[in-house]
Amino acid sequence: MTKALKQHYQWEGKIEVVSRAQVKTKEDLSIAYSPGVADACNQIVANPDDVYKLTRKHNLVGVITNGTAVLGLGDIGPQASMPVMEGKAILFKEFAGVDAFPICLKTKDVDEFVNTVIQISDSFGAINLEDIAAPECFEIERQLIEKLDIPVFHDDQHGTAIIVGASLINALKLYNKQMESIKIVINGAGAAGIAIAKHLLILGAKHITLVDKKGILNSKYPNIGSEQKLMLKHTNLDDVSGTLQDALKDADVFIGVSAANILSAEDISLMNKNPFVFAMANPIPEIMPDEAKKGGAVIVGTGRSDMPNQINNVSAFPGIFKGALMVRASKIDESMRLAASYAIADLVKDDELNDEYIIPNPLDERVVPAVAEAVKQAAIKAGLARI
Amino acid sequence: MTKALKQHYQWEGKIEVVSRAQVKTKEDLSIAYSPGVADACNQIVANPDDVYKLTRKHNLVGVITNGTAVLGLGDIGPQASMPVMEGKAILFKEFAGVDAFPICLKTKDVDEFVNTVIQISDSFGAINLEDIAAPECFEIERQLIEKLDIPVFHDDQHGTAIIVGASLINALKLYNKQMESIKIVINGAGAAGIAIAKHLLILGAKHITLVDKKGILNSKYPNIGSEQKLMLKHTNLDDVSGTLQDALKDADVFIGVSAANILSAEDISLMNKNPFVFAMANPIPEIMPDEAKKGGAVIVGTGRSDMPNQINNVSAFPGIFKGALMVRASKIDESMRLAASYAIADLVKDDELNDEYIIPNPLDERVVPAVAEAVKQAAIKAGLARI
Repeated sequence: MTKALKQHYQWEGKIEVVSRAQVKTKEDLSIAYSPGVADACNQIVANPDDVYKLTRKHNLVGVITNGTAVLGLGDIGPQASMPVMEGKAILFKEFAGVDAFPICLKTKDVDEFVNTVIQISDSFGAINLEDIAAPECFEIERQLIEKLDIPVFHDDQHGTAIIVGASLINALKLYNKQMESIKIVINGAGAAGIAIAKHLLILGAKHITLVDKKGILNSKYPNIGSEQKLMLKHTNLDDVSGTLQDALKDADVFIGVSAANILSAEDISLMNKNPFVFAMANPIPEIMPDEAKKGGAVIVGTGRSDMPNQINNVSAFPGIFKGALMVRASKIDESMRLAASYAIADLVKDDELNDEYIIPNPLDERVVPAVAEAVKQAAIKAGLARI
Repeated sequence: MTKALKQHYQWEGKIEVVSRAQVKTKEDLSIAYSPGVADACNQIVANPDDVYKLTRKHNLVGVITNGTAVLGLGDIGPQASMPVMEGKAILFKEFAGVDAFPICLKTKDVDEFVNTVIQISDSFGAINLEDIAAPECFEIERQLIEKLDIPVFHDDQHGTAIIVGASLINALKLYNKQMESIKIVINGAGAAGIAIAKHLLILGAKHITLVDKKGILNSKYPNIGSEQKLMLKHTNLDDVSGTLQDALKDADVFIGVSAANILSAEDISLMNKNPFVFAMANPIPEIMPDEAKKGGAVIVGTGRSDMPNQINNVSAFPGIFKGALMVRASKIDESMRLAASYAIADLVKDDELNDEYIIPNPLDERVVPAVAEAVKQAAIKAGLARI
């Protein structure tokens, strides 16, 4: 038995719901429960916004999945996905003081997923969608953002995109390259890859090529998804075809959200001078840092905590939700996501910046407050704040 | 501002979701979250029952409402019902160590309610339905019990019935009356009243009359509900009509789950010798104890904590769920509910029993362990235990 599995048996669940109120005496009971609690109910009837003051809604995130794309394990279903969702919930609490509760849905149907989340949404101040397969995740998120008046954020898309954005902003500073002129290859055209492409476009990138299992995404790509097709309006503008290796020729950045060990040093040597390699496949990256550097990479980031430049969404989502909840934002929009990327990037001062330190460690305690404040200010500026 | 409302503002929510796992170091993260958590997921894929060992499911109750019948406040909707559901959740934790999380649904439609709960059910080890209006609550519970393999228990029905049953068992001992021969009047033929009638029938009662706003429930009662109609097969066997006062003539027990101040001492004087009055309308009972005693009542119980014989479901549900969860019961059946009534009644020894002390105080720390053990043993006996 692995250490992690053994520890999970010992924990008997990683979350626990505790009371903030004391109920030891009859008087306690009469205040926290009947009859006193009726005063809080009546107050919410009279002034619905007070649900944010009189219940935990103001600080409570629903972590919602159907278990169709869990880590690298694929479609393992709702029950088996629960340990990940509990893990996510405790990261919210430990990193940002945000309460989060895991809800694992049985359905794979988009409408049924959406309707269920709408039904339960009053219990939460925000919704974190997690580990839902593409392409359903796009439509689920789109509909929920439209139909709910609380923030809905699919972390596998945006969390990853935000931290990749932060990493790239700082890498560019180090090598004096410009977002507008660099050539970016994203390998993996699923939820994360597409969200990264969108986010980098908004950050100013002009030359992005998405690659998936059957090569470069272009107008003739077999069985192309509608979200992928949409991306072709803004990426691979010359509509070229070819392999991942073809795409890497003269590229400045490789961003991998794909699979272990699919690149060699030789592949990296096809890239432009001073290339960056963000190899984020978990737990084994697309190429190990030593190998990437042999091929000429100057900056290498991975998803791993035991290597430099850990590009991990745990640096992003706790602060993003915290910032949104602080001002009761009605949604998390592009401007808030951009603000998060810049806030993370800015934590590494110019004189600290080096090849092995382009982004703060996910455990750096400055990250959450900085991201939360930036997201909060962006929400206010965007007119999405409600207090 | 009342003390209870002020306290609710200060609490900023009565529940909080905390972490049982430490995530301070990179190694902590790699065990509680990626990549270590995958071992727990894979273990559940290989052995689905281990979801009870590797997540909080084994100790976690969903407290689910749509806010259509909240306390005496009526249909106040999901948001305004939240303070009550949070209150319920903390009673689970403080009384029984059971984690509970409130989910407030938007729908009033039976099928939509049922489907939503089915969708989210994998997150929980049991479901406590709460404050749902009749007659929808009957069908919702019936369908969920049929369709889910975890316990589903509508506390407003069964919790109240169990504690009324316990109270009546002990009252009968004191006055040497027999369940089979006494005449029982239940005023209020909604969810609680009907559940009390069913429970007392199973406890051996033969002569029950249900009364609602338009008088005694009989075959000519206007707009009678289907659940009420069903009850006529086992209650009011002579199919009499009349007022509440007509029903009280020669009755041994009055059980009120209705409204404040609807009875006078004179009404009580219509009853049989040594009558019992369980006046449970909240917060103001159907008749105050002094007044009931003036009319001849020997034993009076109310829902209030500031009067003797508090007949409150907080004595029942924490132990019932705890017992069911201890053995992973697939449902909570009649035998388990009966066992709970007897376990509560048995806590008052024969030599302690008196008019002012027929049931233990809800804060008596012996209640939950006694109920849990009795319910657990009953589940094993009924073949409903799964460990």
